[in-house]
Amino acid sequence: MIKTDILIIGAGPTGLFTVFEAGLLKLKCHLIDALPQPGGQCTELYPKKPIYDIPAYPEILAGDLTHRLMEQCKQFEPGFTLGERAETIEKQEDDTFIVTTNKGTKHHAPVVAIAGGLGSFEPRKPLIHNIADFEDRGVEYMIKDPEMYRNKNVVIAGGGDSALDWSIFLSDVAANVTLIHRRNEFRGHLDSVEKVQELKNKGKINLITPAEVVGIVGDKSVKAVVVKQAQHIEKEFEIECDHFIPLFGLSPKLGPIANWGLEIEKNAIKVDNALDYQTNIPGIYAIGDVNTYPGKLKLILCGFHEATLMCQSAYQRINPGKRYVLKYTTVAGVNGFDGTRKEAPKAVVKAID
Amino acid sequence: MIKTDILIIGAGPTGLFTVFEAGLLKLKCHLIDALPQPGGQCTELYPKKPIYDIPAYPEILAGDLTHRLMEQCKQFEPGFTLGERAETIEKQEDDTFIVTTNKGTKHHAPVVAIAGGLGSFEPRKPLIHNIADFEDRGVEYMIKDPEMYRNKNVVIAGGGDSALDWSIFLSDVAANVTLIHRRNEFRGHLDSVEKVQELKNKGKINLITPAEVVGIVGDKSVKAVVVKQAQHIEKEFEIECDHFIPLFGLSPKLGPIANWGLEIEKNAIKVDNALDYQTNIPGIYAIGDVNTYPGKLKLILCGFHEATLMCQSAYQRINPGKRYVLKYTTVAGVNGFDGTRKEAPKAVVKAID
Ligand SMILES: Cc1cc2nc3c(=O)[nH]c(=O)nc-3n(C[C@H](O)[C@H](O)[C@H](O)COP(=O)(O)OP(=O)(O)OC[C@H]3O[C@@H](n4cnc5c(N)ncnc54)[C@H](O)[C@@H]3O)c2cc1C
Ligand SMILES: Cc1cc2nc3c(=O)[nH]c(=O)nc-3n(C[C@H](O)[C@H](O)[C@H](O)COP(=O)(O)OP(=O)(O)OC[C@H]3O[C@@H](n4cnc5c(N)ncnc54)[C@H](O)[C@@H]3O)c2cc1C
Repeated sequence: MIKTDILIIGAGPTGLFTVFEAGLLKLKCHLIDALPQPGGQCTELYPKKPIYDIPAYPEILAGDLTHRLMEQCKQFEPGFTLGERAETIEKQEDDTFIVTTNKGTKHHAPVVAIAGGLGSFEPRKPLIHNIADFEDRGVEYMIKDPEMYRNKNVVIAGGGDSALDWSIFLSDVAANVTLIHRRNEFRGHLDSVEKVQELKNKGKINLITPAEVVGIVGDKSVKAVVVKQAQHIEKEFEIECDHFIPLFGLSPKLGPIANWGLEIEKNAIKVDNALDYQTNIPGIYAIGDVNTYPGKLKLILCGFHEATLMCQSAYQRINPGKRYVLKYTTVAGVNGFDGTRKEAPKAVVKAID
Repeated sequence: MIKTDILIIGAGPTGLFTVFEAGLLKLKCHLIDALPQPGGQCTELYPKKPIYDIPAYPEILAGDLTHRLMEQCKQFEPGFTLGERAETIEKQEDDTFIVTTNKGTKHHAPVVAIAGGLGSFEPRKPLIHNIADFEDRGVEYMIKDPEMYRNKNVVIAGGGDSALDWSIFLSDVAANVTLIHRRNEFRGHLDSVEKVQELKNKGKINLITPAEVVGIVGDKSVKAVVVKQAQHIEKEFEIECDHFIPLFGLSPKLGPIANWGLEIEKNAIKVDNALDYQTNIPGIYAIGDVNTYPGKLKLILCGFHEATLMCQSAYQRINPGKRYVLKYTTVAGVNGFDGTRKEAPKAVVKAID
């Protein structure tokens, strides 16, 4: 059982900044995310695109925003359960909560902050009749640990940035990389498309287009995929492989959270925006894109504010009766849980003679 | 008469970010500030100190934060009335407002956003019986345009960063700079103290400590100050000068805004935080440190969120009935009023052969 002060569901920008604000209040956080990496939409959907409305950043790439938020919160040593979906929540007799993931990992906390954005990112799966039999047995829809593919034979399917970028990356790790796409045209960053062209020319990526994977062959695990090539004469053939990785994009689904007894409106969780972004269940808050209230804007900067006010309320719940006086970071400094301390330089008092 | 869409009172971080958010909605802004420069508390009180809780900035100097906010909003070409205090507001028959400053400058707008922080910064004045007679006639409490002092004889009083930094700066501009402080010890950045020591040694700053200015001599304008030196034998003497600049710090006072008929609580303006940060007078909003509501935190990041929601409501007021659909800057880009356009790079669609 993982224990923490604030259990955050969703490691997008809102969840990450919550760690920082909670840390200032000496509260520990643990984050659960269905994705294998933090950053939410910013990392999964548009890491290489610039955002223009982050305050005081005339321009920042979504990926860099995530890095900076990670850097800002790391001094408070958050825990992470990545690649798992928060599935169920049980309220305990002492008003604390136990949240269990689809993989059975249990988390225990007095406060739950749902920062689930548009929902947990779930893969779009190809229509192959027996694919479910091979999930986690050679079929993966996202790449958690590239080392798992070292010296293996890998088939990747897809035509976007993920398929391109992972083909490039794994061409150095795997024994063999085949990239299959149902069109000749790829849709991605110019850099990535050109790099794949180059690796194909060098024989480091085996490219098959226009084509589709239509079957999986194997016993306990994947042994080969069946490929149908859609050229002049339709033909099917097998490619031997250890892993088949369809990267057709991930799309967010509110999913299990919708059944937690929370008031839902327009696929989002209703909160008390006049006070602390608490839901109808005391102790459960919803912040960032996942919540709704009159005038709600699904913007990153709004999530930051909501997280900050929410942490104050969580502090009261965890430390009932204790009075908290707001301190400026400039004046009071920041004490990292890792023993570091950041402080503004003090003015000197010095005679001039 | 200056005309604009949103008249912003206060050019602190909240006011500056309002310009950006309004710009995204194609609304023009004009800012009034009692200070001669934008940045509010950040610039006036702690420009060289780091802040640690600006989202995605693990550390940023308050002065740099101001620069970045200026850079972000400048594409929307805000107007500025600086060094003047908003004094009165009159509601017009068509529900628009005219705001007049202490210098008589008039501003006309359908929406007023008060981002006045802790109030307009007013100088602490030395107790010299006839000082009021010389204000703006040789006595200045803040420096608006350093060029005004070129080749003049200047006496500065004070012992903090402003007095030190302006003495350094003007030592290159004025004919003559005398710095007077009632203690031998100065309280400021180490750099500044050392620099003044160096300029004193070189004879570029005339330093008199411990001493006080106790009188002003002049007719239509300042001719000399009377200095009382508090050493073994008390002695008074005159120093001829064109300007006397007491820099004893500025402290914020809510001031005239308190009499505008707005609901005030704890020296701040009550707003509807459940919707759009509007005050009890429709069309007048209050955002940032100047407002109050249940759970209010006087933090910079909260002002950013409040400004953003407020602009949506202002848009409705200015464009009644027009439906606004939120667009992401990443996707829709940013059209500056200066003709620039910022846009995320599009994905390319390219065949690999
Ligand atoms: C193309 C594009 C451009 C954009 N441009 C801008 C812009 O210019 N400015 C701006 O402010 N915003 C922009 N946005 C919106 C911005 O990305 C979101 O507002 C922001 O990501 C919301 O952050 P969040 O942390 O609330 O949620 P998210 O970023 O959505 O993160 C939520 C996380 O929670 C996880 N999660 C959800 N449910 C569960 C569960 N049950 N178990 C485990 N994990 C779960 C998800 O996997 C996800 O990682 C843009 C969005 C897109 C798609
Ligand atoms: C030493 C110190 C350290 C701080 N550290 C932090 C920190 O670490 N993190 C954080 O988030 N916050 C911090 N703060 C607080 C932060 O500076 C404020 O929250 C922020 O400045 C508020 O911004 P604002 O734009 O709302 O108001 P302000 O910055 O106060 O700006 C308001 C402006 O309005 C002007 N004004 C007011 N009335 C009038 C009028 N009638 N006419 C013309 N002009 C008027 C004033 O002159 C002023 O320039 C700190 C403050 C101090 C003093």
